Amino acid sequence: MTTRPRFTVNRSSPSLWRVVFDNPPINLIDPVMIHGLQDLLTEIEASRRVTVLVFESANPNFFLAHYDLAADKAAFDALPSITGVDPWADFLIRLSKSPAVTISAIRGRARGSGSELALATDIRFASRERAILGQFEIALAAAPGGGPSTRLPGIVGRGRALEILLGGNDFNGDLAERYGYVNRAVPDAEFEDFVTRFAERVSRFDPHAIADVKRFVNAASLPPDDAFPPQMKAFWDACGRPALPALAGQAFQHGLQQHGEVELNLGEWVGTLAGPAKGAQP
Amino acid sequence: MTTRPRFTVNRSSPSLWRVVFDNPPINLIDPVMIHGLQDLLTEIEASRRVTVLVFESANPNFFLAHYDLAADKAAFDALPSITGVDPWADFLIRLSKSPAVTISAIRGRARGSGSELALATDIRFASRERAILGQFEIALAAAPGGGPSTRLPGIVGRGRALEILLGGNDFNGDLAERYGYVNRAVPDAEFEDFVTRFAERVSRFDPHAIADVKRFVNAASLPPDDAFPPQMKAFWDACGRPALPALAGQAFQHGLQQHGEVELNLGEWVGTLAGPAKGAQP
Amino acid sequence: MTTRPRFTVNRSSPSLWRVVFDNPPINLIDPVMIHGLQDLLTEIEASRRVTVLVFESANPNFFLAHYDLAADKAAFDALPSITGVDPWADFLIRLSKSPAVTISAIRGRARGSGSELALATDIRFASRERAILGQFEIALAAAPGGGPSTRLPGIVGRGRALEILLGGNDFNGDLAERYGYVNRAVPDAEFEDFVTRFAERVSRFDPHAIADVKRFVNAASLPPDDAFPPQMKAFWDACGRPALPALAGQAFQHGLQQHGEVELNLGEWVGTLAGPAKGAQP
Repeated sequence: MTTRPRFTVNRSSPSLWRVVFDNPPINLIDPVMIHGLQDLLTEIEASRRVTVLVFESANPNFFLAHYDLAADKAAFDALPSITGVDPWADFLIRLSKSPAVTISAIRGRARGSGSELALATDIRFASRERAILGQFEIALAAAPGGGPSTRLPGIVGRGRALEILLGGNDFNGDLAERYGYVNRAVPDAEFEDFVTRFAERVSRFDPHAIADVKRFVNAASLPPDDAFPPQMKAFWDACGRPALPALAGQAFQHGLQQHGEVELNLGEWVGTLAGPAKGAQP
Repeated sequence: MTTRPRFTVNRSSPSLWRVVFDNPPINLIDPVMIHGLQDLLTEIEASRRVTVLVFESANPNFFLAHYDLAADKAAFDALPSITGVDPWADFLIRLSKSPAVTISAIRGRARGSGSELALATDIRFASRERAILGQFEIALAAAPGGGPSTRLPGIVGRGRALEILLGGNDFNGDLAERYGYVNRAVPDAEFEDFVTRFAERVSRFDPHAIADVKRFVNAASLPPDDAFPPQMKAFWDACGRPALPALAGQAFQHGLQQHGEVELNLGEWVGTLAGPAKGAQP
Repeated sequence: MTTRPRFTVNRSSPSLWRVVFDNPPINLIDPVMIHGLQDLLTEIEASRRVTVLVFESANPNFFLAHYDLAADKAAFDALPSITGVDPWADFLIRLSKSPAVTISAIRGRARGSGSELALATDIRFASRERAILGQFEIALAAAPGGGPSTRLPGIVGRGRALEILLGGNDFNGDLAERYGYVNRAVPDAEFEDFVTRFAERVSRFDPHAIADVKRFVNAASLPPDDAFPPQMKAFWDACGRPALPALAGQAFQHGLQQHGEVELNLGEWVGTLAGPAKGAQP
C-alpha cells in the first residue's frame, strides 16, 4: 500500500490495483491529486501488469465532491500534459485509453469533475443508497470542462445527456441506473463485495484479450481527443466572466466545499442560487 | 399570453416560454400549426432571451395526435423553409438546433409527427399514466418522414429503434422510460409541478453556459442535416403509392382523426388494418 | 416446414419464416449450422417476399450455447463467404443487412457466438425467466470474434458494453433488459404469444416501407463492415496462443459442451477457470 497526498494505492495483486480517494473533508479534486493520478497512470502504462484499476473512496459520503474552486490556478497550469492539452483533459483522455480496465466504485457524491472522472473510466458501479452523481456546473454559469458533454450521449443517449448537463441536478443510484449514467446500482450492503468480486475476476483474465476488447470497443465508441480541449477552454472562459465568480462567491458563503448541507444536497441547492423565477410578463 | 391558431404561447418569463397545443379535437399537426411554430422559432432565435421552451398540450388525451392526413398538400408545400428542405424537416432541424432548451412535456398521445417533434426537442418528460408514444406510419405502408429513424438510435439504441419503427406499436409512459424513448416517466399527479420546477430552474441559468453545453452535445450527437430530406421524400413517395391511400381510407371510415377508440388505441388498432395473417404454407 | 441439419424452417406464411434451432444437446453453432444459415439468407434475399425472420430454439435451456470449440477448423475455413471476409463475420454482416426484419426470440442461453447472432439481428426479445445472455470469451483468453465489441456500444452504451465484454458474466432476462442488451424481457408464460403476435403483425406490413425504415436506421446506426474482420483475426490469433487451449482443455474436462452444470452456469463457472486471485503484494 502506498499513501500519496489525496489518495492511497492498494496493490491488491500485481494485476489489480485500487485507488482510495482520501482528501478530507469532502474529497475535492485539486492540482496535487491530479498530479498524483497522472503519475499513477504513467506507472500503470509502464508496468504492463496491471489489468484492473478500481477507484473508490475512504469517505462514504463523497466519492469525489468536485474540483476545488479555491485551488491555485498557477499550480494547475504547472501540471504536466502528455498530450499537450489542458492537464485535466490530458488526464481524462489518458485515463479513458488506459491499458487497464478502469472501474469507478461510486459510494457517496461524484459531481462535476468527480463525475467526469467516473465517465472517463470504463465501468461505473454505484451504491444504490449512497451514490449521487451530477454535473452542477451549469448552475454556476459554466459548461463542464472535462468532456461529459461528449461522453454522456454515447452512454445515456442524447436526451438524457442534455437533461443531466442542462438541469445540473443530482441523480441518485436508482435514477442513475435507469438513465445508464452508471452501469448498475447495487444495494450498499452488497456493494463492496460485488465490486471486489468483479474486479478480482477480471484481474485474472488474459491481458492480451483485455487489450483486444478495449481496442475494438474504443474504435467503436471512444470520442476523438480533439473534442475535449474546447470544453476546457469554455470552462476557463466561464471562470473569467462575471457570473461564475459571483455565484461561486455566494455558494462559498453558504458552505460550499465544507462538509455540510450545501455539499450534501448540492444539486438541489445550486438551483436556488440564481434567485427566484423572473416574474411573468403580462 | 398569445393565442395563435392551433396553440397558445405563455411567456411565463422573458427566459421561459410555454407552447400549449390546442387544436381540437385531437391536436392534429397541420400546415397552419407548422407555420405558427416556424414563426415562433424565428421569434426565439431573434430574441436571444428565451432559454427554455416547453411544449405541452391543453388536451390531456392528446399531446399531438399526428399529422393531419386530410390536410391540403398545397398549403403544406407553400410553407416557408429556411434550410431549403421540405418544410417539416426544415422545422425539425431548426428546432433541434434552437438556442433555447426545448422540453416536451408529454401527457396524452404523441404519435407520428407528434413523436417526431418530441424526438427533435432536447428533453422528453412523460406522464407515467397518460403518455403514449409511437410511430405508427409503418402500418400505413410508409416510413416516417420526420427523421425518427435517424434520431432514435442515438436515444434508445439501434435495437429498440428498429422495434419502435418497424412494430408501429404504442409505448406507454413506463415502457417509454424503460426504452429511453422519454427521459423519464413521472406520476401524473406530480407531472405538471415536476416540469414547471425543472423548466423554471433551467430558465434561471446562464444563457452563455447553456449555449456552450448545447454546442458540445450537438457536436457529439446531433445527426447531420442531410439525413433528413430523403426520409421526407420516402414518406411522400409512400403517399403516392396505392397502399397508403387504401389503408388510410379504411382508417378514416373507422374513425381516424376523430376523438374515439381508433385514435385512443391507434397503435393496437392499425395492426388490424392490413388484414389477418396470411395462411401457413404447407 | 423444412428440416435441415441443426435447425428447422417454419414458413408460417410467405412473409413470415421462423428458424427453430435444434442441435442437441445444447445448440452449439458449428460449420454445418453456419452453412445452413448462409443458404437460408441467400434464399430470403432472393425471395423478396419474406419480411420477418424469427430465430428461436427447440431447447428451452439453450437458444444457442456458443461456437463448437471442437469443430473442424478446415470445415469452417471451407465455408463460402459472399463478402470475402471470414465466414462467420460474412454471415453476421449479411444478417444485419437482411431485407427481412430479423427477430431473436431468446429463451435459454445465448452466449458467445449465440449472443453475436442475436446482436446482429434487428430486435431481441427475451424470456424474463429463461433467457441468459453473455460473452464469456474473455475468460478463455480471447476477444469475441463476431463483432459484439462493435455492436454493443450502439445498443447498450459504452460503459455497459465494456462490462459485458470484459466481465464475461451471464445476464439474465431482467438485467439484460435493464442494460438494453435485449429490447425487453417478457414473462415466459406470455413469451411465445408475444413474439408471435409481434412477428405476425410486422409480417403484414408493406415491404417497401419496411425496406425504407431499415435503410434509414442502418444509415444512422449500422457499424461499417470493415470493423469486423480484425475481430475475427484477433479471435483466431487467440486460439493459436497457449492460454486459450489450456483453459478450454480444463473446461472440456469439467463438462464444457455437455448438457450440465458447466454450460448451464457458464458465466459464473468460467470465472473460476484461471485460478484463484493472485496474492496481495506486501
